[in-house]
Amino acid sequence: MSIGIFDSGVGGLTVFKEISKEFPLADIYYLGDTARVPYGNKSKETIIRYSLECANYLYNLGIEVLIVACNTASSYALEILNANFDIPVIGVIKPGVELAVKSTRNGKIGVIGTQATVKSGSYRTEIEKKGNFIVYQKACPLFVPLVEEGLIDHKITELTVKEYLEDLVNKDIDTLILGCTHYPLLKNVIQKLYPHLNIIDSSKATAIYLKKKVITLGGTGERKIFITDESSSFEKLKNLVVGADIFLEKLELSKICTL
Amino acid sequence: MSIGIFDSGVGGLTVFKEISKEFPLADIYYLGDTARVPYGNKSKETIIRYSLECANYLYNLGIEVLIVACNTASSYALEILNANFDIPVIGVIKPGVELAVKSTRNGKIGVIGTQATVKSGSYRTEIEKKGNFIVYQKACPLFVPLVEEGLIDHKITELTVKEYLEDLVNKDIDTLILGCTHYPLLKNVIQKLYPHLNIIDSSKATAIYLKKKVITLGGTGERKIFITDESSSFEKLKNLVVGADIFLEKLELSKICTL
Repeated sequence: MSIGIFDSGVGGLTVFKEISKEFPLADIYYLGDTARVPYGNKSKETIIRYSLECANYLYNLGIEVLIVACNTASSYALEILNANFDIPVIGVIKPGVELAVKSTRNGKIGVIGTQATVKSGSYRTEIEKKGNFIVYQKACPLFVPLVEEGLIDHKITELTVKEYLEDLVNKDIDTLILGCTHYPLLKNVIQKLYPHLNIIDSSKATAIYLKKKVITLGGTGERKIFITDESSSFEKLKNLVVGADIFLEKLELSKICTL
Repeated sequence: MSIGIFDSGVGGLTVFKEISKEFPLADIYYLGDTARVPYGNKSKETIIRYSLECANYLYNLGIEVLIVACNTASSYALEILNANFDIPVIGVIKPGVELAVKSTRNGKIGVIGTQATVKSGSYRTEIEKKGNFIVYQKACPLFVPLVEEGLIDHKITELTVKEYLEDLVNKDIDTLILGCTHYPLLKNVIQKLYPHLNIIDSSKATAIYLKKKVITLGGTGERKIFITDESSSFEKLKNLVVGADIFLEKLELSKICTL
């Protein structure tokens, strides 16, 4: 079988990695929209437009399931993608929520993400469907550039983590959803500062969710990563997350920007 | 007369502000490409494509001079813009350099900017044309998100400034070019930490340069700011930099993405 994954940039590679582990025989194609990264500070209308364009490219490769490995796109474009394509479209919100509601003991769940993800309220909506939980949200717009900069374990990063998370922790959350695919790269520093938190990594949760929902039919184990613009930071982080042996293929922007 | 200014986002409004002061009667149109911001982490090819598209939109409004108020675009696209349009095209690099070489006493000049600007070497090339100066460069990719986040005067910002500038200051620079239009908003915190530095703000330098180069023919004093995507952080910073009385006009992305 063949799986397509897209993200605004490099963050979704954490999802690509986990899905690769769970589906070693599947053909997996990843599209990182590096020419228009990030999505998290764009409007709903623009996020939907970009998501449809990325999905369309992957769909034309013959994929049988589409993973929206970007929380921002999952928050705004999932419904429209599902309506526009005749294959299952799976986002990262639901899988993260399922794991979080199972993990919490006191019912207080924190959600961190981009401005757009938090504004959409997508996590809150999904969590509240599951029962009587209290949700605290916080946008952390500096986390993506910190990760992109490679400041994974740095004094600036620690200070920024404290700045963003202090409020949530003071509200007594016991579970924290990393609502952005970049954030798993900051998991260690967050866990070090707040060792009592259950940290929910939606990348891993999505791979497990996919395994439960989809019948695997084998494949050739092909792996391809496409980008819409060359980017040295993408390449550096790609090597860190999934290794140097998968090459990048640059796409012509005009093949993507079709809407 | 009518002046067009474009930038990847909100940063160039510092240029808009200075030019507005110097040319109160001119009609001034600003285009912030918020749907594709930032440019600083994109490739040369993509930066040129986006710059041509922005320039084209403003040109069709009948502008008589084009200001590229983005250091990244000025670094990569100025020559091509000049070749493609039959009006003067002025970037922010040369004006900043002219002021810097006049200001330095010991001939050691620091340049900070985005990854793309630093990689282009555009400042180094222009400075070295002016004589025997020593140039030290440093990319500061966290500065733009810090400004966009409104953390103008914050502990995280101070720490990040120190992290990036310590090396340059240790190399005994006496003059620092803010090679990104977002950076003037961090001028105060930089000056507080390093009071001995001459800080060169290219926004102001560009307005002065324009006044020397261009014959003003009056106008109606019209001011328009166009954006390619709605953005609350753009609006917030726009109000901070140029005031709330100039409204924003959202453009259809398809009117811009023509290449």
